[in-house]
Amino acid sequence: MLRLAVLGSGSGTNFQSILDAARAGALDAEPVCVLSDRADAFILERARRAGVPAHAFDAAPYRTKLEGAGEARVLALLKDHGAEAIALAGFMRIVKRGLLEAYRGRIVNIHPSLLPAFPGLEAWRQALDYGAKVAGCTVHFVDEGTDTGPIIAQRAVPILDGDTPDSLHARIQAVEHRLYPQTLQWMARGQLRIEGRRVLGAPETPA
Amino acid sequence: MLRLAVLGSGSGTNFQSILDAARAGALDAEPVCVLSDRADAFILERARRAGVPAHAFDAAPYRTKLEGAGEARVLALLKDHGAEAIALAGFMRIVKRGLLEAYRGRIVNIHPSLLPAFPGLEAWRQALDYGAKVAGCTVHFVDEGTDTGPIIAQRAVPILDGDTPDSLHARIQAVEHRLYPQTLQWMARGQLRIEGRRVLGAPETPA
Repeated sequence: MLRLAVLGSGSGTNFQSILDAARAGALDAEPVCVLSDRADAFILERARRAGVPAHAFDAAPYRTKLEGAGEARVLALLKDHGAEAIALAGFMRIVKRGLLEAYRGRIVNIHPSLLPAFPGLEAWRQALDYGAKVAGCTVHFVDEGTDTGPIIAQRAVPILDGDTPDSLHARIQAVEHRLYPQTLQWMARGQLRIEGRRVLGAPETPA
Repeated sequence: MLRLAVLGSGSGTNFQSILDAARAGALDAEPVCVLSDRADAFILERARRAGVPAHAFDAAPYRTKLEGAGEARVLALLKDHGAEAIALAGFMRIVKRGLLEAYRGRIVNIHPSLLPAFPGLEAWRQALDYGAKVAGCTVHFVDEGTDTGPIIAQRAVPILDGDTPDSLHARIQAVEHRLYPQTLQWMARGQLRIEGRRVLGAPETPA
């Protein structure tokens, strides 16, 4: 069982999908802790209700990145819980060198667009404003950039004429909640390999 | 029947799909001429075999755009044939102001990626090199930019571990050959409307 830490800043719906898959036996991972830079994030409450250790940490003085004392706190918590890999789930900070070097190739993120299109914040809104007709989500390894790491899996969803940012976001999230646990399972099983920028070894016919 | 001109520089497989759809009654358009900046392009031979007027034109001294005397030649040919709209089909030049103003909102292009990802040349190869897992194609109105105009339709295709540039390109082209005639039919029927960057009015459940 892969000892998995989850970092999030929001309501934690992707964490919930990971937890559900793990408890249903569809994901060979154990969520060992949930860490949040926001003490009032509902992801922490979800963890507590499920009996998963939940910790808020102070990331000040930085507002958009995890570095310095905040990063050190996270590294200490990850060590305390014996975390082997990290899933970012709505974590609203850029991960920096300290964490990346401690967990090289073992930090993944899910992003609500078909990267490299629409990196950054509110990607679903960016796609709608651009007039795209296909949106989607991407699970990728985390590197030094913003949403630039090697891509493990992507899934497309349509954009409809009547869509609002909320309706499109909901359609993307429904797909995220299936894709993220699947992708983590491929990682947990050790079946993925990175060749340059390409990640190989995922099943070719996704569920 | 929409009087449609097709501009291409290559083998003309997308022109063939347009011609086939028109002749099968699935597209309310008549291909009135095929114009190419390359006298040896097979798209001209396809047109001749099908009895569609085919013209090569000289676009020198420019290598990558259609402007000046070459543009004037194209405008004259389009007028001679009474063209009402233009479909670019593998046309390897940037369309400039003269043609855009004469056919504003009536020039469309098909591009082998899910724009705004991978504009420019050999988009399928760009997607593969990036490590994307979903590729696709985009039909869009043509504006002053390179692959930046309002998007009418997009379709996704998977990228597989064993893909080469050629295998991925073939998979995308198979989808292009269905999507381009469909999209032109929505334009021929006058059912599309542009609101800002969004193009509305396409059927929500594509065939």
